[in-house]
Amino acid sequence: MQKPTLHTVLSPRLLDLYDLTDTIVVIIDVFRATSTIATALYNGAIQVIPVPDVETCIQRGKEIPNSVTAGERDGKVIPGLQFGNSPAEYTRDFIEGKTLVLTTTNGTKLLNMALQMGASDIITGSFPNISAVTDYLLASKKNVILGCSGWKNKVNLEDSVFAGAIASRIGEHYDILCDSTLMAQTVYENNKHDLPALAKKATHWHRLANYGLSYDLEYCVSEDVANVLCHYQDGKLVVP
Amino acid sequence: MQKPTLHTVLSPRLLDLYDLTDTIVVIIDVFRATSTIATALYNGAIQVIPVPDVETCIQRGKEIPNSVTAGERDGKVIPGLQFGNSPAEYTRDFIEGKTLVLTTTNGTKLLNMALQMGASDIITGSFPNISAVTDYLLASKKNVILGCSGWKNKVNLEDSVFAGAIASRIGEHYDILCDSTLMAQTVYENNKHDLPALAKKATHWHRLANYGLSYDLEYCVSEDVANVLCHYQDGKLVVP
Repeated sequence: MQKPTLHTVLSPRLLDLYDLTDTIVVIIDVFRATSTIATALYNGAIQVIPVPDVETCIQRGKEIPNSVTAGERDGKVIPGLQFGNSPAEYTRDFIEGKTLVLTTTNGTKLLNMALQMGASDIITGSFPNISAVTDYLLASKKNVILGCSGWKNKVNLEDSVFAGAIASRIGEHYDILCDSTLMAQTVYENNKHDLPALAKKATHWHRLANYGLSYDLEYCVSEDVANVLCHYQDGKLVVP
Repeated sequence: MQKPTLHTVLSPRLLDLYDLTDTIVVIIDVFRATSTIATALYNGAIQVIPVPDVETCIQRGKEIPNSVTAGERDGKVIPGLQFGNSPAEYTRDFIEGKTLVLTTTNGTKLLNMALQMGASDIITGSFPNISAVTDYLLASKKNVILGCSGWKNKVNLEDSVFAGAIASRIGEHYDILCDSTLMAQTVYENNKHDLPALAKKATHWHRLANYGLSYDLEYCVSEDVANVLCHYQDGKLVVP
């Protein structure tokens, strides 16, 4: 039987070079949107609503009962929103039973791009929920696009390395003719024994550290600490 | 003294995210345009004229005395042109004293993009002339963009690995805040002892092998076998 394909898209700018038909798109934004989404859902949020801009975030927050609005631009909480994009904010005490309305610089934008391109099966992926991601991909037996959010369309290390981690775990079940995947997997396998050290080399890390957010780093590269599947359905991310 | 910067651009689609002012742009198309350019100039070609399309190639070939037209699309010689894009074609016996007018799928297109973005200092780079490239970059003390031609805007392994080879050799002289460079360098350093084996993993390699061009592979990853600087000046690539 022919294996499904697996491709890594290193920047949102390259997403339209790929066919998303009958394909699972994994949205990856390790620092920190998709780590935060997994954490909020793991800790009992009813749903996470990813929105493309601040105005929509505020509006949806007003419409939806028991919701909180959150978002960052350039690593800082956006004026007009209530919370930031640190997974540490979304403890069970705080988020259980609530709806999180979220906008971010890169991750939610890529998700909306995939939707506009007609993607019909979208999940979010991060180290905190990596096993839920690989379990879903393997069970689905569909083609896979690992979509890295990057930083303002530039390629980034941490999202690429997460794509490499996925390929390293389940690549044997796929037909991989994708140089980006080979490169990402090489970088992951070279550094998997000390991901925090690798993450500290990332340009985005320097950016976050400048904002005093270094406590998020170790969490965002920890595997399976918020291990739930985050599936996009009708405008929201939920645990199916 | 502050070091100059060095960035790697993994796809032509990402070039406009970078500032090319007062920057040396290295155009990289390992399989095979920039390897062929180095070889032709090393073997005594007067100049190589990179052109964006077939019609221009034919026209310039008619205008310039003692010239040959060459180009490939999808790895095959283009009807209407005289020669292909294999460095093996450009022996001293054949090319010495001639002008090569060249159009290719990816490399000459990226060069023209850089020109349109206002780049004023452009060279081409490949393993056959890697030392000439690094010598020029170090002597110039300017910011550097390593521009990978990729394959139809997708990231490819061989161009990325060449960028990694440059970073590995001279990175210490630059301020590198560029995740693409870190990744490329990791992949290069993991595979530098057997680049032909790595190249055979590249998707473009499978494409070329299908066209029977496997004899080019080893040559295109051999360092310094055509070690001349290929500098763009007034519409042509020459040895300065």
